Amino acid sequence: MTETTFFPIAELFELVKEIFVSAGCSDGQAAAISRVIVAGERDGCKSHGIYRIEGCLRTIRAGKVVPDAVPTLGVDDSAIVRVDAKGGFSNAAFELGLPALAARTRALGLAAMVINNCTHFSALWPEVEAIAEEGLAGLAMCPSYATVAPAGGRTPLLGTNPMAFGWPRENNHPYVFDFATSVAARGEIELHRRAGKALPEGWALDANGEPTTSPEQALAGAMLPFGGHKGSAISTMIELLAGAMIGDAMSQEALDVLGTTSLAPNHGELILAFDPQKFSGGRKGNPLAHAEILFEGIMGHGARLPSQRRFAARAKSIADGIELSAAEMAQLRELRQ
Amino acid sequence: MTETTFFPIAELFELVKEIFVSAGCSDGQAAAISRVIVAGERDGCKSHGIYRIEGCLRTIRAGKVVPDAVPTLGVDDSAIVRVDAKGGFSNAAFELGLPALAARTRALGLAAMVINNCTHFSALWPEVEAIAEEGLAGLAMCPSYATVAPAGGRTPLLGTNPMAFGWPRENNHPYVFDFATSVAARGEIELHRRAGKALPEGWALDANGEPTTSPEQALAGAMLPFGGHKGSAISTMIELLAGAMIGDAMSQEALDVLGTTSLAPNHGELILAFDPQKFSGGRKGNPLAHAEILFEGIMGHGARLPSQRRFAARAKSIADGIELSAAEMAQLRELRQ
Repeated sequence: MTETTFFPIAELFELVKEIFVSAGCSDGQAAAISRVIVAGERDGCKSHGIYRIEGCLRTIRAGKVVPDAVPTLGVDDSAIVRVDAKGGFSNAAFELGLPALAARTRALGLAAMVINNCTHFSALWPEVEAIAEEGLAGLAMCPSYATVAPAGGRTPLLGTNPMAFGWPRENNHPYVFDFATSVAARGEIELHRRAGKALPEGWALDANGEPTTSPEQALAGAMLPFGGHKGSAISTMIELLAGAMIGDAMSQEALDVLGTTSLAPNHGELILAFDPQKFSGGRKGNPLAHAEILFEGIMGHGARLPSQRRFAARAKSIADGIELSAAEMAQLRELRQ
Repeated sequence: MTETTFFPIAELFELVKEIFVSAGCSDGQAAAISRVIVAGERDGCKSHGIYRIEGCLRTIRAGKVVPDAVPTLGVDDSAIVRVDAKGGFSNAAFELGLPALAARTRALGLAAMVINNCTHFSALWPEVEAIAEEGLAGLAMCPSYATVAPAGGRTPLLGTNPMAFGWPRENNHPYVFDFATSVAARGEIELHRRAGKALPEGWALDANGEPTTSPEQALAGAMLPFGGHKGSAISTMIELLAGAMIGDAMSQEALDVLGTTSLAPNHGELILAFDPQKFSGGRKGNPLAHAEILFEGIMGHGARLPSQRRFAARAKSIADGIELSAAEMAQLRELRQ
């Protein structure tokens, strides 16, 4: 018989935060990290939930992140809000910058948050959701470390370079997507390896740059971008905009500095925010109401909106608590020590 | 024996412009359209070259575009530069807005050009190239008319929604990509139909929403987005940002108004511009020099940069003139009458 524990969200947050504080994180760093980890667990995104704690702690122990960093905020009369994460995790940096990003976006119609010098391990959807809660659209992207070959290439150069978008909806969860620009996340290849299963074709190359369906050879070789040369181009754009342009590392440099793919990399992040009311200029009425025609069309055609499953899991977690298995409970107990 | 004619670029421009002026276009509209059509032909992009003239003329004759529209520019202290194309082609509107977009981007680091109420038929790469010539990065996108089913859907709702990106390079052509967010362009399906060839799998659905490799059934059904649910999400983002957000038509509305896919649709366009010098904030030196590491990596891995073939064709056209076949010459003569 397998037992499960239902945690009220706030209780799981306190527990996770305690783990990070025990590991040397400041209260500010620990709280911001714990919010996104618990949000992942709450939304049924196991890949970005408590499963991530171990890697964060490993990164702290390896001295690859400043666990008590105090990020600093720079705001001027431009459209760029700048946060220096001071070598800490990206999460506290984002939280510091968000009010300024929202204010500049409302003033100018369009603004950007640049996060520099951060360690990044989390999903991007909590960020674009937070922007959508301000009534703004958000587009977030960042490099990673080099594990993906560009289309036509044979060895890793690009990161899995995630991209997330959020659009606010009145009286509803926002429209949100968040995905890696590789065909699959690295964790999915690892899961195939553990299960002894072959990869689907088109996911990866071996160390010689030849197509492979072996998870071991893929992990020693390169992943492929989603959507062939188009996905590869988008991933390249992310390297440029959220790496070189913001004066931070691209994925190859992040890997060179880190020296391993088992820790979380240090680089930057770029987040754009748009004020639909300003952009619409009063044409065609309320842009949010207008957008609903599209969502009705997508669902009316039998398709799903990208985050529907996540929002359903969230509703369940809010009502019943977050469900953790006995194994997950044991893991949490071990991490607390 | 097939004869070809080599046209100096300026001569072909005058010839194409004359065709549009004869069709009722103002000098300003005709010149802007002709510049992008001749640029397509010059760069070996036959799909966006003189082949497009006929569709433009059809759209003019059908009264679906204002051939002598005078676009208007609105600039304020926000990050949004607004051009009302007044029902004309997008090209003259873009040319009007570009200097203001560049100026606002240099002032703020980030700015957007919104084009409203335009008829759009051309490639987006000339626009992001023009932005890159200003030393800025550019990201352009627009809806189209509904011919693409969202991932998981069965009937058209999204457009082929192109997206183009340009990054300036010192003493070199910019890094540029420009692609439809459908697996294939509609013209490619038409070419398969004419050649009596089956489509690759994964390109299209028939009118019942079932996968098909028949070009005829695909044209009566729906195209599919590139990259599955990820490409579908990006296409949806383009509908939102470059449709609903800017107070203009989304692809389903554009098709409803136009009533056919044989003419060019009326909608809007969104163009973002970034100033790398402002974004880099002096970190890691010159962001353009920094980015070269990535391009060297891509080419060093045996992959190509997206527009290399186009730039090679351009060099040849500049040296030798634009090569037109006897059939293309005959077509041009016919269009002039």
